[in-house]
Amino acid sequence: MDILHTLSALRHRLAQESTVALVPTMGYLHDGHMDLVHRAQLHAPCVVTSIFVNPLQFGPQEDFSRYPRSLAEDCARLKQAGCSVVFAPSENEMYPEPQSVTVDPSPLQNELEGAFRPGHFRGVATVVLKLFHMVQPQVAIFGKKDYQQTLILRTMVRQLALPVTLLAAETVRAPDGLALSSRNRYLSQAERQRAPELYQALEAVAEALKQGKTPQESLKRGQLDSTCWSTDYMAVRRAQDLSEPSPADRSLVVLGAARLGGTRLIDNLEVLL
Amino acid sequence: MDILHTLSALRHRLAQESTVALVPTMGYLHDGHMDLVHRAQLHAPCVVTSIFVNPLQFGPQEDFSRYPRSLAEDCARLKQAGCSVVFAPSENEMYPEPQSVTVDPSPLQNELEGAFRPGHFRGVATVVLKLFHMVQPQVAIFGKKDYQQTLILRTMVRQLALPVTLLAAETVRAPDGLALSSRNRYLSQAERQRAPELYQALEAVAEALKQGKTPQESLKRGQLDSTCWSTDYMAVRRAQDLSEPSPADRSLVVLGAARLGGTRLIDNLEVLL
Repeated sequence: MDILHTLSALRHRLAQESTVALVPTMGYLHDGHMDLVHRAQLHAPCVVTSIFVNPLQFGPQEDFSRYPRSLAEDCARLKQAGCSVVFAPSENEMYPEPQSVTVDPSPLQNELEGAFRPGHFRGVATVVLKLFHMVQPQVAIFGKKDYQQTLILRTMVRQLALPVTLLAAETVRAPDGLALSSRNRYLSQAERQRAPELYQALEAVAEALKQGKTPQESLKRGQLDSTCWSTDYMAVRRAQDLSEPSPADRSLVVLGAARLGGTRLIDNLEVLL
Repeated sequence: MDILHTLSALRHRLAQESTVALVPTMGYLHDGHMDLVHRAQLHAPCVVTSIFVNPLQFGPQEDFSRYPRSLAEDCARLKQAGCSVVFAPSENEMYPEPQSVTVDPSPLQNELEGAFRPGHFRGVATVVLKLFHMVQPQVAIFGKKDYQQTLILRTMVRQLALPVTLLAAETVRAPDGLALSSRNRYLSQAERQRAPELYQALEAVAEALKQGKTPQESLKRGQLDSTCWSTDYMAVRRAQDLSEPSPADRSLVVLGAARLGGTRLIDNLEVLL
């Protein structure tokens, strides 16, 4: 496995590869990431995992500086998994000049996550487009835990005619239901015990929807204990485009974001009626 | 020469080409375009000329619907010039859904041309990025007549790490100095006789700069007769980035845009002091 830090080394390494799959990550890899790598191997002999904590997608008050980093451990896991190339550029390599050219992924960028993280999806779309241009993969794999992100990137790929197939993998969960996330490491032991309540709330909403209740009624079943949790949003949307659902829609997704102590968690659950 | 109208036909045709040069145009080709094609042939065995009048870069009051179109004549000229592929997509092929994902090429997008054509450069950057993804050229060639456009696209290529080399070709002029432009066909015979005054004004400004006059003083030499012309702007900028020049700058460009009757003309002239 090659561990590369510069674009020129990456381009040189990939010049002779005919089919490349990209797994873009911010590192501090967990089993969810490793599942993406394993899936990538089904699509291409050469799997590139990028590791880059992208400052462009963090707000000024967010956790960019304390976001966990563990390059050596990440590389050890990736090597064992059979990853071909790790691309871990420095911030200067990724943004050698201030990034004034960006991707505007409107209109979904200002909803749900976007409403609470202004500029987040612009930063995500810009860095992913840039990674696509750097790696030139035929396939790229994202996790459904970031449901809105995956939808925004899928729209970007389609509307910009990018020559890449985007695949979305199911969320990997701990046995108690908590979606795996690098940010789970922020949780204290007591918080970690309560963290699955977010997923349980999504399940309660999904159950009510399946019982024929309206989204409004169903969301009442998914209220988190406000002594511990501070909820940013809980919403029922159309799975296809995250627009407000009509009663005729059968393919929905329940999305939630809430803060537990100092840690902000997100999760979602698809519901087929 | 292949004349292709769909992305799938284009991708199929180009699948076996190792080096491709792209000449993006809006058609109604003149000798300036043909010069771009000839230059492209020096860089790649396969030259793709795209012909697409891009609605995204026209304002609501602009000349999108009357912009001249002449696909048959264009193809005849391109065939004779040895072009390999003409890509002439329909509006529906280029934009099968409303284009909500766009490239934000700030901050230069709101200056000079951008100040008079709001959204123009966003439309240009978006369609060119899309053409890059469709054609996947190693080289793309633009004309310096659209100086600001070329600079914005160069910044886009650099900041988005696009795997393409962008080349800028000198403006081709009529014997009387008028820059060749598809929009020249809008000019009446009388207007065509006066049209070179724009270039003459740029030359007068350049001459004054070479004599050591300040940009402010020099611009006074380049005033167009206001009985015939309505000037949008005349400006002296740094050639490298179109910022306001300091007295130490030696590499400048004089840019002008003015309307003659119903026709808006632009031109520019680089000045090395």
